[in-house]
Amino acid sequence: MAENPLEVVAHLILLLSIILVAAKIGGEVSERYLKIPPVLGELGAGILISPFLLGGIHWFGGKPIFELPGDAGGLPVEPQLFFIAQVAAIVLLFEAGLETNRKQFVKYVRPATAVALGGVILPFFMGFAATVMLGFASMGSIEEMIPALFVGAIMTATSVGITARVLADIRRLDSPEGVTVLAGAVVDDVLGIILLAIVIGIAEEGTVTAGSVGLIFLKAFGFWLGLMFIGSIVSKYISNVILWFKSAGGALVLVLALAFLASAVAEIYFGLAMIIGAYTMGLALSGTELKHQVEDSMRSVNNFLVPIFFVVIGMQVDFTAFGAGETSLSTSIIFAVVLTTFAIISKVVGSGIPALFVGFNKIGATRIALGMLPRGEVALIVAGIGLTSGVIGQDIFGVTIVMTIVTTVVAPLLLIPAFRGGSGLRVDTEVEAEAEIGDGK
Amino acid sequence: MAENPLEVVAHLILLLSIILVAAKIGGEVSERYLKIPPVLGELGAGILISPFLLGGIHWFGGKPIFELPGDAGGLPVEPQLFFIAQVAAIVLLFEAGLETNRKQFVKYVRPATAVALGGVILPFFMGFAATVMLGFASMGSIEEMIPALFVGAIMTATSVGITARVLADIRRLDSPEGVTVLAGAVVDDVLGIILLAIVIGIAEEGTVTAGSVGLIFLKAFGFWLGLMFIGSIVSKYISNVILWFKSAGGALVLVLALAFLASAVAEIYFGLAMIIGAYTMGLALSGTELKHQVEDSMRSVNNFLVPIFFVVIGMQVDFTAFGAGETSLSTSIIFAVVLTTFAIISKVVGSGIPALFVGFNKIGATRIALGMLPRGEVALIVAGIGLTSGVIGQDIFGVTIVMTIVTTVVAPLLLIPAFRGGSGLRVDTEVEAEAEIGDGK
Repeated sequence: MAENPLEVVAHLILLLSIILVAAKIGGEVSERYLKIPPVLGELGAGILISPFLLGGIHWFGGKPIFELPGDAGGLPVEPQLFFIAQVAAIVLLFEAGLETNRKQFVKYVRPATAVALGGVILPFFMGFAATVMLGFASMGSIEEMIPALFVGAIMTATSVGITARVLADIRRLDSPEGVTVLAGAVVDDVLGIILLAIVIGIAEEGTVTAGSVGLIFLKAFGFWLGLMFIGSIVSKYISNVILWFKSAGGALVLVLALAFLASAVAEIYFGLAMIIGAYTMGLALSGTELKHQVEDSMRSVNNFLVPIFFVVIGMQVDFTAFGAGETSLSTSIIFAVVLTTFAIISKVVGSGIPALFVGFNKIGATRIALGMLPRGEVALIVAGIGLTSGVIGQDIFGVTIVMTIVTTVVAPLLLIPAFRGGSGLRVDTEVEAEAEIGDGK
Repeated sequence: MAENPLEVVAHLILLLSIILVAAKIGGEVSERYLKIPPVLGELGAGILISPFLLGGIHWFGGKPIFELPGDAGGLPVEPQLFFIAQVAAIVLLFEAGLETNRKQFVKYVRPATAVALGGVILPFFMGFAATVMLGFASMGSIEEMIPALFVGAIMTATSVGITARVLADIRRLDSPEGVTVLAGAVVDDVLGIILLAIVIGIAEEGTVTAGSVGLIFLKAFGFWLGLMFIGSIVSKYISNVILWFKSAGGALVLVLALAFLASAVAEIYFGLAMIIGAYTMGLALSGTELKHQVEDSMRSVNNFLVPIFFVVIGMQVDFTAFGAGETSLSTSIIFAVVLTTFAIISKVVGSGIPALFVGFNKIGATRIALGMLPRGEVALIVAGIGLTSGVIGQDIFGVTIVMTIVTTVVAPLLLIPAFRGGSGLRVDTEVEAEAEIGDGK
């Protein structure tokens, strides 16, 4: 009876039940007693129940609750749970897109591009520098530089999921800073995949051509622009077609199907992250009647799925990777401290300074910089690719994990206080913005 | 980059998108134009897009959309999609439990037991007889009888998902007939797993002991009784604990976690079907304040997930299995016609006749008998176990698939007209029932 697929499912359903309870306890404790965003409690719960901590213990001499699956492409969670978590991430970012005012978004694309450029270039160079400085790579030849290039690529990641969740919780998704961060994440992702393609190209072939990089750029940017363009023109027709369906939940299901379609197409055919596809589709539909139709039911689906995403991210955090490999623990600790410090400084400065030049005051620039800070699952996955392909070793992997955890956990802690207080726009731009918003509505 | 787990996920997300769109188109066409229950359109959509039909075509010379996964324990769908479908089934049956009036349920457990007993015993013997009659097994020795025993076991299956969905659609879940069918499915499942354990025991060991059968019975029945008992006593405390959680979606998530827990425990530790665990937990919580708290959000989650379940069931239907193996096509066709006819007669008579003796009139007995008719995914899974373990061959497997499709598709077609018209209770029991319901409310 070992081949009965229902028994496999039953074990995973048990894990799902544990994940949901852990998420809610973590979230509730965070909100009530620790006065921190619930998303942090969910991440913490995930870390706690991961196969590397409580989940890996042989309780009562039995099998551990969360076993490390052998064939999940290096992921420490079962593919089924990882899949549900990714569905959750798509739903989360799709809703963030739906909730975004498209006019507002278009208006802030240019500032966001400046923010994203700074938030990619500086972290890349500082990550590169830290790796070389601490002797984990050298400048002797291109081959010796590869680990440093890879760490640089990991440093550029922006995981917009956490920021989107925090901003949704405090209802600031649609603020100028919120829109800039989300638009910035889109641009960041385009730049990030180009950088990753270059680094992997160098690691595999020793070189990359300008043509192939240009192609990647065109594809990624073209997808995004195309979807936005199509969205703004045909979204009304899409909306009408979907609203023709009368059966219970018809609009919800079809809207989600569109979100899934955009996500899959973004990843498979254009090399973009799925959540970017989901966000863009949400944005494309944000001006339609559909939005109001599905708002309530979407919230319920979100409430159910999204905690799974954050717990599963937490479960991917492997503390035991830290200090593994040939490097001494003290060197690893020093590297981790340096890289984490560099990661925070480089994103805050790299994204914050450009923000000051594109219409935000210091308050606004700080908010945006903090919003771009979390590396989250994006960095974990890039680091995982590096580890499994042999470009970086266990030692560097462990260090990048620490950097990822710290930036991911620190950001929401700082974001909420940062969003208290007045406007983040410069006085001149604010007057202009208010006039335009006044016009628009 | 082949090891990037996100690319694997992206392909599955694309499939999920196709599944959702197919479900809604199938459902809408059924309801609007064919005037049949939407669940049938969803099943049909699943059959159409399965790897055996449209999904398996090499469109434009590329890879087929739905490839047959090699390592999914004989299932023709990817484990991730099968998992989501099972989550959907759990949510569906949990909600059916929540919507059931517990007093009503307890009242109809005895009639339901009679209905289930008849609906297991007669189909088993008629399935056995058909297999022997058509020469697919012989009575010479126990070993030669094994295929017939297995077909008998497949015939006893009841897939309550379809009936629950149809009754929910026409708002008759809480009718005496509806409750009897759902309670009957619980008993049917207990009897079914005992029968399956006996048949598998005979196939593997050549014999089974009364002790081991008794143990299976005690475990299955004990779980169910225990959960009902605990549910009725501690459900109020559970409800209070859950309502303590203030965060958005807290009640929804924790209630679903309980449903998942009960499902997993039922399958892993007690050998019961997951959906029976889910239904029982729903029943246990049906009298609490929680029910009203989560009703709306549960409906949205249901609307999203449940169509996936029915499309995925449809996708498991493999017409090509029919006529495979050494048997001639004409023999297969005859066997399929005989077995399907026997399957319908045996359930309708086996469940219907006892219903006449436990308080229902002819109308009520017909409704109940039709409600017990669909074999659905339960039979598909049992048949799949038989095929992969070598107990039955491709020829018998194909025939049982036809039987399953027909009973599953015919039942909802007949159920809706059957539920029109008057009461299904005998006049004497009706007076009594009305008096009691009047007392209870």
